[in-house]
Amino acid sequence: MVPPQLPGNTFITPPLQQLLLPDGFRFQHGQTIAPFTIAYETFGELNEERSNAILVCHALSASAHVAGKYDAGDEKAGWWDGLVGYGKGIDLAKYFVLCVNIPGSCFGTTSPSSVNPGTGRRYGSQYPVVTIEDMIHAEKRVVDHLGIERLLAVAGGSLGGMQVLMWAVCYPGMVGSLIAMAAGAAVPVQGIAWHIIGRKIIEADAAFKGGDYYDEPHQLRGLEVARMVGHMTYLSTRALQMKFGRRRRGTTRQFEIDSYFEYQGRKFAGTYDANSYVRVQAAMDEMDLAEQYGSLEAAFAEFRSPALLISFDTDWLFPVSDVEKVEDAMKTNGIDVTHRRLSSPNGHDTFLIDYELITPPVTEFLARP
Amino acid sequence: MVPPQLPGNTFITPPLQQLLLPDGFRFQHGQTIAPFTIAYETFGELNEERSNAILVCHALSASAHVAGKYDAGDEKAGWWDGLVGYGKGIDLAKYFVLCVNIPGSCFGTTSPSSVNPGTGRRYGSQYPVVTIEDMIHAEKRVVDHLGIERLLAVAGGSLGGMQVLMWAVCYPGMVGSLIAMAAGAAVPVQGIAWHIIGRKIIEADAAFKGGDYYDEPHQLRGLEVARMVGHMTYLSTRALQMKFGRRRRGTTRQFEIDSYFEYQGRKFAGTYDANSYVRVQAAMDEMDLAEQYGSLEAAFAEFRSPALLISFDTDWLFPVSDVEKVEDAMKTNGIDVTHRRLSSPNGHDTFLIDYELITPPVTEFLARP
Repeated sequence: MVPPQLPGNTFITPPLQQLLLPDGFRFQHGQTIAPFTIAYETFGELNEERSNAILVCHALSASAHVAGKYDAGDEKAGWWDGLVGYGKGIDLAKYFVLCVNIPGSCFGTTSPSSVNPGTGRRYGSQYPVVTIEDMIHAEKRVVDHLGIERLLAVAGGSLGGMQVLMWAVCYPGMVGSLIAMAAGAAVPVQGIAWHIIGRKIIEADAAFKGGDYYDEPHQLRGLEVARMVGHMTYLSTRALQMKFGRRRRGTTRQFEIDSYFEYQGRKFAGTYDANSYVRVQAAMDEMDLAEQYGSLEAAFAEFRSPALLISFDTDWLFPVSDVEKVEDAMKTNGIDVTHRRLSSPNGHDTFLIDYELITPPVTEFLARP
Repeated sequence: MVPPQLPGNTFITPPLQQLLLPDGFRFQHGQTIAPFTIAYETFGELNEERSNAILVCHALSASAHVAGKYDAGDEKAGWWDGLVGYGKGIDLAKYFVLCVNIPGSCFGTTSPSSVNPGTGRRYGSQYPVVTIEDMIHAEKRVVDHLGIERLLAVAGGSLGGMQVLMWAVCYPGMVGSLIAMAAGAAVPVQGIAWHIIGRKIIEADAAFKGGDYYDEPHQLRGLEVARMVGHMTYLSTRALQMKFGRRRRGTTRQFEIDSYFEYQGRKFAGTYDANSYVRVQAAMDEMDLAEQYGSLEAAFAEFRSPALLISFDTDWLFPVSDVEKVEDAMKTNGIDVTHRRLSSPNGHDTFLIDYELITPPVTEFLARP
């Protein structure tokens, strides 16, 4: 049943759903949080054979709200609304899409800002270190809960794309195919360097208090500035030059890029939690499939399904050459892998911007028999 | 007279000298600090005709101590010791070298950390905004004081190179030739973006107190982290990959780049003043010769002497294409300009590292009749 359609080629989605784990969730490094809630959203309809499910993995600042609006009055649709919808690249007339809010993130899943029922206080600094494997395992709990034994595809970009690759490593038999955009098997050094600096900025904020800042709720300036650093890693030099250059704001001496940073930083810190930022980003930096498994070939040893890798020529967080490493390992393993190198001025964020670019390879890939 | 030579192909230099301006120094934006002291150093001997003087302009974190050691026991020689010395690229057997600690900087010239004799307190937030023109004017005061009417050359890299270009604009008749490395006529947007973020990090440090932090003297964490951002802009992706990659420190999980950042950040914040960092870097960002004069051709309209521009292929703070803009304008104006594009993995900092690369073009240029 197609849900009510809305102007702007979008639609009404069901509300956020929650899977309660009364026995808790055990994190990879050994800590358990119990009870633990996993938030997720679904889009489209699961067929009777439960064979049309596509798991979408979200990136750092996103949520399980992939597409559509909860309410016609919502200002914005979901974060991948340009790709996921009725008649879109991931066509909800055919596919059932599922997205899970990852552990560590603050959009419905038990997070550092959740209240620990044992103490009556928010977890804060007591919330465990999070890994990409934790994200995969939480996603699998929901997949199992929905009775899905094999996913038609697992898809995502950036941190979402890293989760996609980790799915192929951890649950190769459940992944019918994979679509990973703007993601490699490890963040290269220029990315971890900027991430580390971002976390230091947050930790240097006296109001952060090691992560136990919830008693005096106010927006952390450290998070605002860390977001500016993150933002820079998503923008290409070309996009910076085209969008801002050295232009000043109106008749003032303030650079437009400064004004843009302040706006974006405030907006982000108003909705995102600093502890979540620190944990989710650190998880991203720690993933290194070649290091963890000895080699990329060894990491993907059990994976047999088709793979679509998409890289962007102006993405310097995950350069094309890093995606090629994944491609090469998959080829060595005899995997049916397609690597599409797309050209866009929009850098790492291309997967969230240029839908006319990313839609054709995705629909072609999904249409294969 | 050649001064005492030291192991490591360096030499003993005279101590820092100071020019006292009892009537003060008037900054470009109108404020005057009186009295005002300008610190400088000289190397080699000024000939009788006063025609062998080369003004070296220093970069953000450097001082007037270009070359040599004050004392045989000094750990390090001056910041351009690889290029300036007896028998080196700028040969002190032939040339008299002069360097002035720029207004805003904290190495001898009256700075934000100097005590205001009128109040008995350090200037701090009351110290004026600084411009590149202020730096040039302070340098000219020392040049005048030494009775030098025309400089054989003005040379520098990065912010020093920007000063060199500003000399050609402000005092074209005094500049016998110019050597500008890793510098353009304006910092491009990716540079100002990182600079702005660095300054926000400092300003977000609660201990910074708007610049009036001297009553509780301790190292500012904000300056340490801002320095890490600055450091990133000096490093090329290639250098990051070769020097650090994703390697961990010893048996720990700490990334080597993290450990390096912490070491460098602490070292820098132990010797440099946060107010100086904010002012000197902002001066760099504000310079934009095309904006200030209508065009680069107009900016260099009065300049007639030979120019040597040196750019580095992995420098992304001042990309080769930005140096080409200066080259093109000079060519249009009929200036005898040489642009040497050098290849090095060391990014922006190549001018402080690869002396075997930069020495030949400098000696060739200076040897021209």
